[in-house]
Amino acid sequence: MRKIITISREFGSGGRELRKRLADELGFKYYDKEILEKILENDNYDDTYIKNFSEKQLVTNTLHYANSFYIYESIQNPRTEIIAEEHKLLRKLANKENCVIVGRAANSILKEFDPFNIFVYSDMKYKLERCRTKGTEEEAELTNENIEKQINKIDKGRKKYYESVSDLKWGNKLDFDLCINTSKMEIKKMVPSLASYIKEFYKQ
Amino acid sequence: MRKIITISREFGSGGRELRKRLADELGFKYYDKEILEKILENDNYDDTYIKNFSEKQLVTNTLHYANSFYIYESIQNPRTEIIAEEHKLLRKLANKENCVIVGRAANSILKEFDPFNIFVYSDMKYKLERCRTKGTEEEAELTNENIEKQINKIDKGRKKYYESVSDLKWGNKLDFDLCINTSKMEIKKMVPSLASYIKEFYKQ
Repeated sequence: MRKIITISREFGSGGRELRKRLADELGFKYYDKEILEKILENDNYDDTYIKNFSEKQLVTNTLHYANSFYIYESIQNPRTEIIAEEHKLLRKLANKENCVIVGRAANSILKEFDPFNIFVYSDMKYKLERCRTKGTEEEAELTNENIEKQINKIDKGRKKYYESVSDLKWGNKLDFDLCINTSKMEIKKMVPSLASYIKEFYKQ
Repeated sequence: MRKIITISREFGSGGRELRKRLADELGFKYYDKEILEKILENDNYDDTYIKNFSEKQLVTNTLHYANSFYIYESIQNPRTEIIAEEHKLLRKLANKENCVIVGRAANSILKEFDPFNIFVYSDMKYKLERCRTKGTEEEAELTNENIEKQINKIDKGRKKYYESVSDLKWGNKLDFDLCINTSKMEIKKMVPSLASYIKEFYKQ
């Protein structure tokens, strides 16, 4: 049985860092919206193409997305046909190998794989600090009020996307196996225990 | 610094089992509503009294509470002076040693101890099954509909209590460090990884 981990997350709570660290700890591949889009850019992508799409390359390609809400914001509303294509790709990837998938309502789209579903969240103080330290120089100059506004706007978009492609309510505990608050604990310190927890989950 | 773990939980999700297993794994004491009440029954309880109140005795005393919602229900609405006394006792216990405390809005009452806060929940299917297998013979004869009604009634009472003694909203993710769904994973399998997670939390 394939082991699929999905991560839904509030913007600025460190879901992307958790994805990378958890995938590395478990030896899984990882994917998110931007990576999926990069793969989809190649109209005739096939298994070899996906396989050769190295993680290093992906990380470089998506570094800016990871750290900035300006670009993120501009890609919030993809067209229906892109969404359908993306979901097809998600299933293809999930069928192929163990992986961690961030966003894309993957807990709902991939429910036939019985994935382990995580929701990552934190308080606004943590999110502001994270955006300041991990964001671009431009963003570091924004007021807290402006950053908070952007964060809320992006999460509103995530909620909208999630609820339009699934019949679930964004952030509802019951649709996740674990909900993790990153406000008071470093993500890298969480990862070994979380990986053990997930291994036990799949041992059953 | 004292290490305090608080567990809030939906009825039937296994919060009580998690409390016992987690406390055992970490070598902590554990307390819940019924244990606190037993201690408070002795008007002049002091440190020696609490210390001699053996866990074995407590488990025997509270076994029926653990497994039945009939008795639980009858003790949902204690008087204000009892609540005040209980909170005083909670602080006294938290000051004394590392412990796990279930219920009593302990995450709010003990916030000055900066506890590690857990919320335990599960889907109704799991709760019904748990009530059937862990409950009394009488309860096993109830219809699912009746059990569900009782469960919802008790959780309504918990919500009411929680929101009357704190300024928090019952079950709100942000007031917990981890929210754990017990529907798809045995509690005893969770405990070693959870204990590691909590140890890392306190190492920071």
